[in-house]
Amino acid sequence: MPTTLKEFESVFPQLVDDLVGHAKAYGVPENGLNWYRQSLNHNTVGGKCNRGISVVDTCSLLLNRPLNEQEYFRSATLGWCTELLQAFFLVSDDIMDSSKTRRGSPCWYLMPSVGMIAINDALMLESAIFLLLKKYFREEKSYVDLLELFHEVTLQTELGQLMDLLTAPEDKVDLTSFSMEKFTFIVIYKTAYYSFYLPVALALHLAGFATPKNLQQAKDVLIPLGEYFQAQDDYLDAFGSPETIGKIGTDIQDNKCSWLINQALKCASPEQRAVLDANYGIKDTEKELRVKQIYAEMKLEEVYKAYEEERVGEIRRLIAEVNEEEGLKKSVFEGFLQKIYKRQK
Amino acid sequence: MPTTLKEFESVFPQLVDDLVGHAKAYGVPENGLNWYRQSLNHNTVGGKCNRGISVVDTCSLLLNRPLNEQEYFRSATLGWCTELLQAFFLVSDDIMDSSKTRRGSPCWYLMPSVGMIAINDALMLESAIFLLLKKYFREEKSYVDLLELFHEVTLQTELGQLMDLLTAPEDKVDLTSFSMEKFTFIVIYKTAYYSFYLPVALALHLAGFATPKNLQQAKDVLIPLGEYFQAQDDYLDAFGSPETIGKIGTDIQDNKCSWLINQALKCASPEQRAVLDANYGIKDTEKELRVKQIYAEMKLEEVYKAYEEERVGEIRRLIAEVNEEEGLKKSVFEGFLQKIYKRQK
Repeated sequence: MPTTLKEFESVFPQLVDDLVGHAKAYGVPENGLNWYRQSLNHNTVGGKCNRGISVVDTCSLLLNRPLNEQEYFRSATLGWCTELLQAFFLVSDDIMDSSKTRRGSPCWYLMPSVGMIAINDALMLESAIFLLLKKYFREEKSYVDLLELFHEVTLQTELGQLMDLLTAPEDKVDLTSFSMEKFTFIVIYKTAYYSFYLPVALALHLAGFATPKNLQQAKDVLIPLGEYFQAQDDYLDAFGSPETIGKIGTDIQDNKCSWLINQALKCASPEQRAVLDANYGIKDTEKELRVKQIYAEMKLEEVYKAYEEERVGEIRRLIAEVNEEEGLKKSVFEGFLQKIYKRQK
Repeated sequence: MPTTLKEFESVFPQLVDDLVGHAKAYGVPENGLNWYRQSLNHNTVGGKCNRGISVVDTCSLLLNRPLNEQEYFRSATLGWCTELLQAFFLVSDDIMDSSKTRRGSPCWYLMPSVGMIAINDALMLESAIFLLLKKYFREEKSYVDLLELFHEVTLQTELGQLMDLLTAPEDKVDLTSFSMEKFTFIVIYKTAYYSFYLPVALALHLAGFATPKNLQQAKDVLIPLGEYFQAQDDYLDAFGSPETIGKIGTDIQDNKCSWLINQALKCASPEQRAVLDANYGIKDTEKELRVKQIYAEMKLEEVYKAYEEERVGEIRRLIAEVNEEEGLKKSVFEGFLQKIYKRQK
């Protein structure tokens, strides 16, 4: 029985109390404590918590039984560490990308009186992870592995963000810097490791099945899955219905190194290429429409659907090959794939 | 024999190669590797490296002999981790404080084509610490302690920075929010832990003398020392000669919660207070001069000198009381104090 968002969210107030309590013990003045509490709540809660929840669900699948209260709390705490990591990235990425809104509210750095303090708040969200790991997992034999896992995934995500920023600067459009190889690197490093591999690796550690072989198997399935997920995300940005996905796609105007533009560049005629060069990455609805016309000419919707079928077939084969001898379960990956395949938002 | 800056710096290129090599093994494209290398060199090298060097010197004092080649390299690596931590803070603080220059060059975020990518670069400087710790210290029995030490000092520094930003916002001058208590909190958390306690704690771990008692004794001396150091820094900002300290003080115009203004607020008459309220924290040379006149009226220079003598006396007593039974040495602290006392810059 998968956990609900409500159950998962019910754990967070305790963690906030732990974190703010720690700061209080240092003697942080009242206004600092209030600020920290607000930053933790505003930036970490309010999303779908897919990543955090998947730590709990994966744990239960691995143990093949419902979690008892303590197991639920511990797996949810690791889930919230994943959400804190994401919050840390989102708060800082939003500043770097000059984003305006996040989960329907203004981005944290745009909130009244926050501004560039948001950078320090992002850092404190990251520090919260290690405080919680120390408080609740210090006695685990996997403690060092947990610390190193967070360190490694953090660096991987930062390297992905770096390549994203260097490949698609907001102010300088140059489609020659794009390529499917760069797309793949960015997607795997910026998204797949922390969104897909991290939650399963954490659950493997908690369940006691984090053998080198299981971790490698998890990576071998989840990284392609994350790649597929992002290609789909990029497809939905242009072809999904705004009513369903809940936002209006902006990848074309934002000069994003998306799956679609890289696919288009791969097979553009010189004339089509000229149109893409002249119209991509500019904040202008007319120009965006010209790019979308090229996408339509190239039948990218069909190209994507063929890619999707091929990718999903491949991932299914990878899942079928998973060796369960050391306690890993195919059902973990089937659950992930099921949530993603043919989603509309 | 204390190590020289040149010797200490000679270790860094190897560490940069390790870090960039790690990114290369991930498949980071060439332009990303070049960017990372440049950020590491620009932001970490070029200062006096007092913190990093003190790890090496403290190690040698604790062992009571010159370090062999391997010991030098390992202590210098921990020293460079301290410098990376500082680089991570400085790159992000400079953005938050809208600073213009750092070590005589433009701040990293103001360098051509860097901008807000600097936030991600700061994060990658932090990640570099944990990569180096893993590469060189994974087999040490103190490995977990080293990780936790960096995590804790990082959080402490972030809490200090938070209180600094909340107490002295650039755009809103309100002297009622200042107090000597806030000054003390900010100084200890934002500066003393990472600048004074961290290097000695690292050296204690490396030398094998990091008993709870020694770590506590180090903290008990070094935190007051750091407090004194910052008060002195604030004093020099207004009263030091620009030719000697190598920069023109800007604390008054920048609305800093400095030792001097807190001292002034403690003993201001209602008339003096009105002048301070009307002139502090404004980018205006005339108004800055009015504040300095009040400082002169109050004889803050003499007040500082009396404070300094008292503080130094206290610190000397603390050093005299240090128990050397578990391998800690008074000479470690005497070295620190000697470098600071009556410095002109």
